[in-house]
Parts: sequence; C-alpha cells; structure tokens
Amino acid sequence: MNNLLERAAAGDIRAIGRLISLVEAESSSSKDIMKTIYPKSGRAHVIGITGSPGAGKSTFVNRLIAQFLAEGKRVGVIAIDPSSPFTGGAILGDRLRMQDHALEEEVFIRSMGSRGNLGGVSRSTHEGALILDACGYDVVIVETVGVGQSEVDIVKIADTVCLILTPGMGDDVQIMKAGIMEIADIFVVNKADREGADKVAADVQVMLKMLGEREWVPPVVLVSSQKNTGVDQAKEVINKHSAYLAESAEGRRRRWSQLEMEVEAILRGEISSIVEKEWKERRNDGLMEDLSARKCDPYTLSGEIIQKIIK
Amino acid sequence: MNNLLERAAAGDIRAIGRLISLVEAESSSSKDIMKTIYPKSGRAHVIGITGSPGAGKSTFVNRLIAQFLAEGKRVGVIAIDPSSPFTGGAILGDRLRMQDHALEEEVFIRSMGSRGNLGGVSRSTHEGALILDACGYDVVIVETVGVGQSEVDIVKIADTVCLILTPGMGDDVQIMKAGIMEIADIFVVNKADREGADKVAADVQVMLKMLGEREWVPPVVLVSSQKNTGVDQAKEVINKHSAYLAESAEGRRRRWSQLEMEVEAILRGEISSIVEKEWKERRNDGLMEDLSARKCDPYTLSGEIIQKIIK
Repeated sequence: MNNLLERAAAGDIRAIGRLISLVEAESSSSKDIMKTIYPKSGRAHVIGITGSPGAGKSTFVNRLIAQFLAEGKRVGVIAIDPSSPFTGGAILGDRLRMQDHALEEEVFIRSMGSRGNLGGVSRSTHEGALILDACGYDVVIVETVGVGQSEVDIVKIADTVCLILTPGMGDDVQIMKAGIMEIADIFVVNKADREGADKVAADVQVMLKMLGEREWVPPVVLVSSQKNTGVDQAKEVINKHSAYLAESAEGRRRRWSQLEMEVEAILRGEISSIVEKEWKERRNDGLMEDLSARKCDPYTLSGEIIQKIIK
Repeated sequence: MNNLLERAAAGDIRAIGRLISLVEAESSSSKDIMKTIYPKSGRAHVIGITGSPGAGKSTFVNRLIAQFLAEGKRVGVIAIDPSSPFTGGAILGDRLRMQDHALEEEVFIRSMGSRGNLGGVSRSTHEGALILDACGYDVVIVETVGVGQSEVDIVKIADTVCLILTPGMGDDVQIMKAGIMEIADIFVVNKADREGADKVAADVQVMLKMLGEREWVPPVVLVSSQKNTGVDQAKEVINKHSAYLAESAEGRRRRWSQLEMEVEAILRGEISSIVEKEWKERRNDGLMEDLSARKCDPYTLSGEIIQKIIK
C-alpha cells in the first residue's frame, strides 16, 4: 500500500489508476488511502464542466486540456459515466473523443461510474479528484453527466463551474436549468458557429441580470470546440476565476463551505453503514410481515434502532 | 393535536391539509403524527405519475381523477412542485388545470415542494401520501416533476408507476429515460391524436422486449387527455396492476422492499440530525482553517465525531 502511494506520488499513472479503483470500489483500504492523500491535496484547480448531454462537453474538455498543456500544466480528468441506476450498465460509454491526449504523460483521464445517483457526483468522484490533486496534477477537470443532480452537485467539489450551453436547445431545457444558472461561474456557449449562439449568450446575460449583483460576474464565452475557436478565451477566464478565488473572501467562503459539505458527506457515509448494519441484523421476515400489516411502524422501529446505537 | 388527527380521520379537508403542512415543515410534532397515522395506512392504491415536463402529466391526472370518482372512489393527489434548489422559489406553479375537481369533497389535491432534491421524491412527499392513505382516500396519485431523480424515486413509494410519453420528444430524451423505462408498470402515450404516437408505442414495445421477460408485462396505452380518449383504458390497466400486486409474490416483494427503503430513509434522517448536531458543535473557524491548510483531514475528524456518538 505504501509502495503504491509512493509510486502514485511520483507520477506513476498505473499506481494512480489503482488508487482511484480502490477508492471507487470502497475497499477496506480506501479510508487509509484518503487519510494519506489528503495532506498533499488542496493545490489543484478543480474545474467542473456541466451542461446537457449533446452540448459537446467532452470535445470542449479535449480542447481545454490542450490549452492547459500549452501552459506547462499537468491535467487530470474525471468523467462521470452515466450508468443506469437499475442495471448498472453504462448507457453511453463513448469516451473516444477525449483520447487524443490519453497517452501523453501530462494527462490522466479516468471515467468513473455515477453510482446510481442518476448522474450525481458521488463521494468516490470527489475522492478521485483529491487523488489526482495530491498526485501533482495542476488542473483537475470533472465532467458531469449533465443530467439532474450531477449539475448542481458539481458545485460541492469544483472551484470553477463551467456550464456548457448550445444554440438550438429547447426553451424547456433552459427552464430546467434555472438552478444551474445560479451556480455557474463561467458560461460557455459551444457550437458558436451555429445560428442562434448570440441569442443564447444574450439570454444568459438577461438571466444573470435577474440573479442580481455579484462580486464575480460570470463571463459568457463563445466557443466552437469543433473549430477550436474561443477555447483560449475560456481557459483565460477560468484562470481569472481561479485567481479571483485565491484573493477574495468569496473564495475562502466557498472553500470552507465545500469542506463542510465534505465532512458532512463522510460523516453521513460512515454513520449510514453503522446504522444499516444494525438494521440488517434486526430485519427478518416476521418483522417485515408486521410492518406490512401495520402491527408496528417504521418510526418507532427506527427510534429503537437508534437508541441501541447511540451513546 | 389529537383533535386534529380525529378531524382528519373523519375526512375534514382542512385538518388533513394542516397535518400535511406540519409534516412538510418537519415540525416537532411530525414524528408523533406519523406514528399515529401509520397503523391506519396501507390501504390506498398509490399511483405514481412520471414523465418529462410538457408530457401533459397534470391534464392526464385530472382525467384520471374523474375516472376514479366515477367508480365511487375518493382520490388524493400530491403534486411535487419543482423548486429551484438555491432560491427555494417555485419555477412552475401552475396547478390550475387540476382544479376542476378541487372543490369536490371526494378529491384532495395538494402541491408539495421538492426540497432541493432537484425534483426528488422527499420524505415529506411520502409522508403526505401516507396521511392521505390513512385518511381514507382509496387512490393516492403522486405526480412527479419529471426531471432527474424524481422519476426513479417514485418507485420507492408508488404501487403502480405510470410513465407518460408523448410523440415528438427528441431521441436524447428517450435515452435519458432508459433508467425509468425499467421501473414503469404502465406506459401512457399521451397526445395520441398527434402524429408519431404509434411510433412511440412501438419503440416502447421494442425496449420492453430488450428488458427481458417479466411476470407483469407493462401495457402501453394510447391516450389523449385533451380529447379524453383512452383514459378509461389507462384506469383499467392501473386497476389490473393493483390486483396483480395484491395476489402475486412480486407484489409482496415490492411492498417489503419499499418498507425497507422507508425504514432506511427514516433511520438516515434521524441519525443525520444527531450527527450534524455534534458536527455543528465541533465546527469553528480555527478548525476550518486547519482543514483548509490540510493540518487535519475530514476522514480523521469524522472518525472522532462518530466515536463520540456511537456506543
């Protein structure tokens, strides 16, 4: 284990991948891995990329990687794969577009499952990002599924949230995204060579005005990932946002709030497994029959279980 | 409180509404309410209605209410309102279409917030449904937001899940819905007077074949809520599914699995508030600085907190 950690810290890509796998599998060693990793983390700039399926997130990420590489930075990428919550199988597994850089030493790309969160950002996604951070990647990009919870969850782990929009998306999609508008630090209008890109950018500006004044005014950048235009500007505003966070009270507030959520998530995970263990021991067919027949109720039952566990 | 419970049990609509409000506000009395309510619950047929925004869920529900009323049944409806997870404000609040029956004695319609779950089915939604059940509504309809988690969550509380589809939805929407296809007991192709309805029905049949053989083969019903055609058939297959659940091993398996999820959800809620209280007491600016500077880590910290709480 120590050997693995040392190799990962030295930049051994296989060792890093193995660490992430151990954490993703919630192996018995994962807590020890994270305790060792944690003190070395906190240096990377974590960029969250979100936006609906089909918005071109992967292509944009691919271009963005090249931009950061040109700055001499090492780039880690975690792409959350959508997995069907019931079969566990991947629906869309095509990460091919991102493989241009996959073999280069300075880039580490990894897909991770969304764990039945229907695209949510899971604990292990966060831990994967922390591992890449601790292993010396300057930039860690987390690409969400772009559906439901994942889009909002990304704010829990990313320093900078980029929302990818495109011309030609239905109005209802934009409405659904109202909660996400509020957490985006940067708006990227992708496929900007298509008709309607200016309209999308203008709409975003109107929505931003409605959200009221903020210290950081989220820039709107027009990009064509296909033609590789505007990506340099996107990279620049991302770096600008990083600098803003480093200097501002807002940056500290955000880091603290993320740390609090992190502690709470770990606490919830740990306590849940203790409680579930107790519940599994208690659960039997007779009890289920009684619950079903309303001879007892889950509220009283749960009170009893808790009392048995808590000091 | 006892007075309120008695009045609710006697069918007093205001008392029922008040009970749901107390539970929704997570008031101190809500656990006692639920303990009293629970033994009387378990009789209603809980129908979950899901499908994308714009699929016509509310109009369909409105028609369905009339069908059940014609059978002499009392109908309770809980509609989950989409609320922005950050502002808490409602995005779409238009429940007007469902108000046709709102004044009739045999129908109770209630909107409940989605509580920052981005449309998820919250604990209080479930509790609201249990209250209606215990207050003698024969049918309880829960209409989801139709975005993300809510669509899958509905299986945790509904006996019968109806997925509303419409012609003219993009292919990507259908792909996103792959996880939901697997939990639907009945497929309703709404707006069946429009072109492409047969194609949607045929696509569903193909997907169902891909999912493999099951004891209950989900029927596909063509409906026009606008023209009020096919809704009687939808009601019939819903009743048929209810009868199937009452008789089959699958029905019992499902009820047990829902009860298990219910116990777990209550346990998680209770234990979380205990843990969070301890964490809030521990949390101070110095500790946040230390976490931020990586002088300590959330894993060790969380271990300490848990050790203080657990026997």
